Amino acid sequence: MLNIYKNLFNKNELLNGNFGLEREALRVDSNGYISFKEHPSVLGDKIDNPYITTDFSESQVEMITPALSTLAEARDFLEVLYDIVSNEIEDEYLWPQSMPCDIPLDGNIPVANFGDGEEGKNATEYRQNLLEKYGGKKQLISGIHYNFSFKENIIEKLYSNLGEGKSYKQFKNEFYLKIARNYLRYRWLLIYLLGGTPVLHESYSDKCLKILQRISHESYTSKGVISIRNSECGYENKIDLFPSYSSVESHVKSIINFIDKGVIENSKELYSQVRLKSKDNKNLIESLLRDGVQYLEIRSIDINPFEKSGISIEDLRFIHLFVIYLSIKEENNYDLWQEEGLFNQRAIAKYGQDKIELKRDGNLVDKNEYALEILSEIERINKELSLGENDNIERIRNKVLSSSLTYANKITEKTKEEGYIKANMSLAKAYKDSAYQNRFKMVGFEDMELSTQILMKESIKRGITVDILDRKENFISLSKGNKKEYIKQATETSMDSYSTVLMMENKVVTKKVLKEHGIRVPLGEEFDSLDDAISSVKRFINTPVVIKPKSTNFGIGISIFPDGTRASDLIKAFEIAFENDVTVLIEEFIKGKEFRFLVIGDEVAGVLNRVPANVIGNGTMNIEELVEEKNKSYLRGKGYKTPLEKIKLDKHVDLFLSQRGLDTKYIPKVDEIVYLRENSNISTGGDSIDYTDTMPQRFKDIAVASARAVDAKICGVDLMIEDYTDKNSPYAIIELNFNPAIHIHSFPYKGVERKIAEKVLRLLGFVK
Amino acid sequence: MLNIYKNLFNKNELLNGNFGLEREALRVDSNGYISFKEHPSVLGDKIDNPYITTDFSESQVEMITPALSTLAEARDFLEVLYDIVSNEIEDEYLWPQSMPCDIPLDGNIPVANFGDGEEGKNATEYRQNLLEKYGGKKQLISGIHYNFSFKENIIEKLYSNLGEGKSYKQFKNEFYLKIARNYLRYRWLLIYLLGGTPVLHESYSDKCLKILQRISHESYTSKGVISIRNSECGYENKIDLFPSYSSVESHVKSIINFIDKGVIENSKELYSQVRLKSKDNKNLIESLLRDGVQYLEIRSIDINPFEKSGISIEDLRFIHLFVIYLSIKEENNYDLWQEEGLFNQRAIAKYGQDKIELKRDGNLVDKNEYALEILSEIERINKELSLGENDNIERIRNKVLSSSLTYANKITEKTKEEGYIKANMSLAKAYKDSAYQNRFKMVGFEDMELSTQILMKESIKRGITVDILDRKENFISLSKGNKKEYIKQATETSMDSYSTVLMMENKVVTKKVLKEHGIRVPLGEEFDSLDDAISSVKRFINTPVVIKPKSTNFGIGISIFPDGTRASDLIKAFEIAFENDVTVLIEEFIKGKEFRFLVIGDEVAGVLNRVPANVIGNGTMNIEELVEEKNKSYLRGKGYKTPLEKIKLDKHVDLFLSQRGLDTKYIPKVDEIVYLRENSNISTGGDSIDYTDTMPQRFKDIAVASARAVDAKICGVDLMIEDYTDKNSPYAIIELNFNPAIHIHSFPYKGVERKIAEKVLRLLGFVK
Repeated sequence: MLNIYKNLFNKNELLNGNFGLEREALRVDSNGYISFKEHPSVLGDKIDNPYITTDFSESQVEMITPALSTLAEARDFLEVLYDIVSNEIEDEYLWPQSMPCDIPLDGNIPVANFGDGEEGKNATEYRQNLLEKYGGKKQLISGIHYNFSFKENIIEKLYSNLGEGKSYKQFKNEFYLKIARNYLRYRWLLIYLLGGTPVLHESYSDKCLKILQRISHESYTSKGVISIRNSECGYENKIDLFPSYSSVESHVKSIINFIDKGVIENSKELYSQVRLKSKDNKNLIESLLRDGVQYLEIRSIDINPFEKSGISIEDLRFIHLFVIYLSIKEENNYDLWQEEGLFNQRAIAKYGQDKIELKRDGNLVDKNEYALEILSEIERINKELSLGENDNIERIRNKVLSSSLTYANKITEKTKEEGYIKANMSLAKAYKDSAYQNRFKMVGFEDMELSTQILMKESIKRGITVDILDRKENFISLSKGNKKEYIKQATETSMDSYSTVLMMENKVVTKKVLKEHGIRVPLGEEFDSLDDAISSVKRFINTPVVIKPKSTNFGIGISIFPDGTRASDLIKAFEIAFENDVTVLIEEFIKGKEFRFLVIGDEVAGVLNRVPANVIGNGTMNIEELVEEKNKSYLRGKGYKTPLEKIKLDKHVDLFLSQRGLDTKYIPKVDEIVYLRENSNISTGGDSIDYTDTMPQRFKDIAVASARAVDAKICGVDLMIEDYTDKNSPYAIIELNFNPAIHIHSFPYKGVERKIAEKVLRLLGFVK
Repeated sequence: MLNIYKNLFNKNELLNGNFGLEREALRVDSNGYISFKEHPSVLGDKIDNPYITTDFSESQVEMITPALSTLAEARDFLEVLYDIVSNEIEDEYLWPQSMPCDIPLDGNIPVANFGDGEEGKNATEYRQNLLEKYGGKKQLISGIHYNFSFKENIIEKLYSNLGEGKSYKQFKNEFYLKIARNYLRYRWLLIYLLGGTPVLHESYSDKCLKILQRISHESYTSKGVISIRNSECGYENKIDLFPSYSSVESHVKSIINFIDKGVIENSKELYSQVRLKSKDNKNLIESLLRDGVQYLEIRSIDINPFEKSGISIEDLRFIHLFVIYLSIKEENNYDLWQEEGLFNQRAIAKYGQDKIELKRDGNLVDKNEYALEILSEIERINKELSLGENDNIERIRNKVLSSSLTYANKITEKTKEEGYIKANMSLAKAYKDSAYQNRFKMVGFEDMELSTQILMKESIKRGITVDILDRKENFISLSKGNKKEYIKQATETSMDSYSTVLMMENKVVTKKVLKEHGIRVPLGEEFDSLDDAISSVKRFINTPVVIKPKSTNFGIGISIFPDGTRASDLIKAFEIAFENDVTVLIEEFIKGKEFRFLVIGDEVAGVLNRVPANVIGNGTMNIEELVEEKNKSYLRGKGYKTPLEKIKLDKHVDLFLSQRGLDTKYIPKVDEIVYLRENSNISTGGDSIDYTDTMPQRFKDIAVASARAVDAKICGVDLMIEDYTDKNSPYAIIELNFNPAIHIHSFPYKGVERKIAEKVLRLLGFVK
């Protein structure tokens, strides 16, 4: 089998796949006590949010990534979900452990409420039954579920080489069934490596508690324990169940049999360590028979509390390697393999840190010897298939050789030092801080525009399915139920017609249309040739004007003469503008401050003013030091990955300062503002300042009327206002933008962070 | 006054203005007999079509240009209206004369029917009253009305120099009243120069007929006559009316007085040679008092039958020069100036070709002496203001000196030779041919895209107001009633959302979305780097593929390997594609013929196939000669001004032919098709062939489904079909285009000319 893999596949084909992660986490207050608050309503309907829902308890958030092609993407997505939830639960935290936090007695555990719909009622009732059957505490145990399949073309190639005489469905079923069986045989190794539940809080009173020793004032452990969650004290069925894995049909028969006997209520209640999954998992039995096995779900993994998302990328990579191993490893015909697998699981779970013996085909074998044997086989696969995981295997080998390196041991030690609640809460608080600092971005998607990242996060939060159609182009689709919308760059949507966009794109047309609607625009003229422009110059001498290319953007080729100037300067400005476009405009210069009004639908969602890069003195630091200090903010970065850019001290700054008799060694007085450049672009370190609440309504009305004039639903209106504090001040519309950035309003340097993405989703009809 | 003009204005300011032309024309059959058919319904509702309506008679088309900045534009627009009407009246013609064609007795003249609306009923009833009062025949006399005003800033500058102590409205009224008075004084000169009605058809039986001599079997003239239309036999009030022109108020008072006395029914019935016009001409009296004079309407001009549009550009330029003269010329205080003006008008009209005397301030003066005096004053103005009309004035002077150069004389001579009906019909037929050859374009707007010209013409035809917002960008607005639409390049409209356009613009997204909708697209992959692409090459060796840049258009950077090729060619093709974009696609090559399906709304409006430049042999001509012959078609031009391009015999053709063992001297056999190039672009002389009626419905359905998948209302679907005659043939969508050209379907090389513009207007809701 290894040779077939080697001949057929390259590294990338084997390392890519479909990976989906699920992680549960309890919401807790700052004392590590379980939350009694409702699941945040902004996270949408639990029933139909595919990303964020609740598990057993109302306080038990479940985060579910979609199937992604690489493990790194899946893990990043899990972090995104963490960030989203963390930022929506206000002063609460996400408990970083699989075993519960401080919890009340069973009767007081808040069972998840799925609402009054039929589906919702069934979901709630099912949880009530579980509560009665297993007790509420066990149901609060959280974990990581690892869903995976190979890319279909892998299976197809294997089928065309090995599938003779079988249907494709049968072949594929057998392929995954083999992995499932081998997983059950060798799962003990994963439990050893990933086990992270050696400690219980005292509130988890249980028969198990009695056999453990107290290691801090409120917590208990047991010598050698790796994973209480995977032990008899963990989340198990009432009796040991061994469904058949020899074929999909016999497996389904086993499950139906268990249900018939009343051992379990439905297939979901079969708490096996690995599950066969199909296309329609709400009707798993039918779908398995009809569609066959589509992927496997590994359920043994404890949350790693030392990782914000609950699992490290190295561990994920090892799991995949392990799965490849399972798909290759030949099986023998030992009968009691399922019982042995369970025996080994429990042994490792309870005593894994110790030197123990496991069973192999009925014989006892030293745990380490067994583990090292598996690892050496994995190592060979890694080498033969050039999978590049040498270092990772070495790390795993060391963990096998030294149980002090296990997560279980590390947690035990940390608990001894700090106590259970404190140890976990200090991690939870650090992760919450990290989530807050990530609020403007979507981890793993930092190559996309911030505005798109923000919109995607907002959509995921609300259970709107996000698909990336063209990542470089920031082209996504959003869908929920029957509704589907295509969106580019966050604000280019179906809400605006093409002609609306074309009007905004064309400054001449924009001005004509605004003027027709009685909205003030700068007077101006248009020239198609430099000669024509030059022959008109005398009319504009000493009058305040702006000279600009007709269609370019970002301020390129624009010259401004606020106090007017002489003919030669005007000619020069025309020359520059004509370098950037075949048509050039000269317009009257409007005095005042320029504001960006972001119109969404019928309202102004944000008003912003941009000021040039600057520092404010404290009387002791010089400009250089003040810049360094200001640049420390995590909101400032490089290359548009953050809402603000770091200020760069370059020759432009030197020139600007020297023209004012200053240099970067100058120490500004207390509260003295020193500007460092002329232009106010965010890209050169400028600051964005929110004015949404202080801007007089009149100017907001003008902005909305301007957008309406071109029938724009999303529109960045640039308004020049002579004195914005005076609602009767003169003004003029400078430009309408059909693709306004939203991140500048969502995360300004100063002022309230505006929930723009929510407004876009409301406009699109996804949010009521 | 001349000095003030000289100091304040330059040539352009004086020569620009607001010019609007109106022209009436009778519809006739091929025998020059008046038409009894209804006004074509495609020309919309007569009541609200601002461009094309009827005057007195149902068969009397009235064409009205909007106010345009230059005389050339106004005259071109008049030709556009002529072309439109001419192409809609099937086998009828437009009579090129002011005096009527062959007409029936009064009772049988078809009076215009304006429908059953209140406004329509009033319009029809008014015409019935005129019929009774003046007789139907007089009402059939047609003419040219010349509406003009100076640009407002001219009047404003004059006001700030001369207007002291007066309101602006009063000043402006006085300015135009002076021109009106001087026009009435000197109108005889224009009548001499432009008079073109020296002949009457015998069916125009009238008291006038008796005093004329027969000059051909069916027509009559009178020695020396210039303009029967401007004589007592023309279109005059029942009695001579001399309303006051001393102020707007007194002028209005005169009109009300005439109405009170029952001499006329309303202000429209005052058939003065010049009219004061205002903003709301349906309520002229109120508007004149409220808004003042806005422009003047000169009504003396006979249609020039030697011009398709009825008036030459030189004559228009002279009229404007004449108006400038009238605005400058000081007035004297001779009391009977109105009576004298009418006397001179009638004298010129009846005897203008002869040496006659006119009256000036009560004294007789030789006509030529008087005319030359005026011309010398005009010449001085032309010189002082550098208006550049020297040649034109010289032309006019010659016409004054030699009455044989008058239109009147030329018409008389032509009529003598050919007869009245035949002479006029030969002109009418030539103009109809010209209109037909212009059908794909809009005269005067040839700098715009053909598709836009076609859409504008279709809109004007239907009375939809066209405004050009940005000419170079082909950006227009269409409006009718309260409805207004903005359109760029004919097919970029508000019907399509921006996200729809963005989807079509992005080949990757297009393919994903089409595939999701079950529509067949070529399989393919996308590469972001040349290295990645090259490392994939071995998978594509010897398979039919297309390699193309992701976003560029017009076939640039595309390589096609219909039979597959070796690695080195693929690498080369990738290199070429990456020169044109950062992302490159490789796609399976689909066999067959490529068709453009133009989807508008829910239907396929046209199906087209393009074939490379070619000639078809006749057994005698060589390729060079055949190309020359084919290029003679008026549908072929250069630089996209025509639906097809001329075939160029360049080195590409030489190479292509030599590869086939041919050269341009080769004489193809009868019906032998010789292709001249590989590519089928229209721009290199390719032919467009319409398949709309023969294409199986299945492929039309697929095209519509493809457009629907991206929610496009206007979409060019490029479909590759292996065998289009087989409705079950394999196919694939090659591309969706959001800005499909319409002219290629409207005017194909072979096949039916499709009425695409009409469908666009229907989609936009302008046409039911």
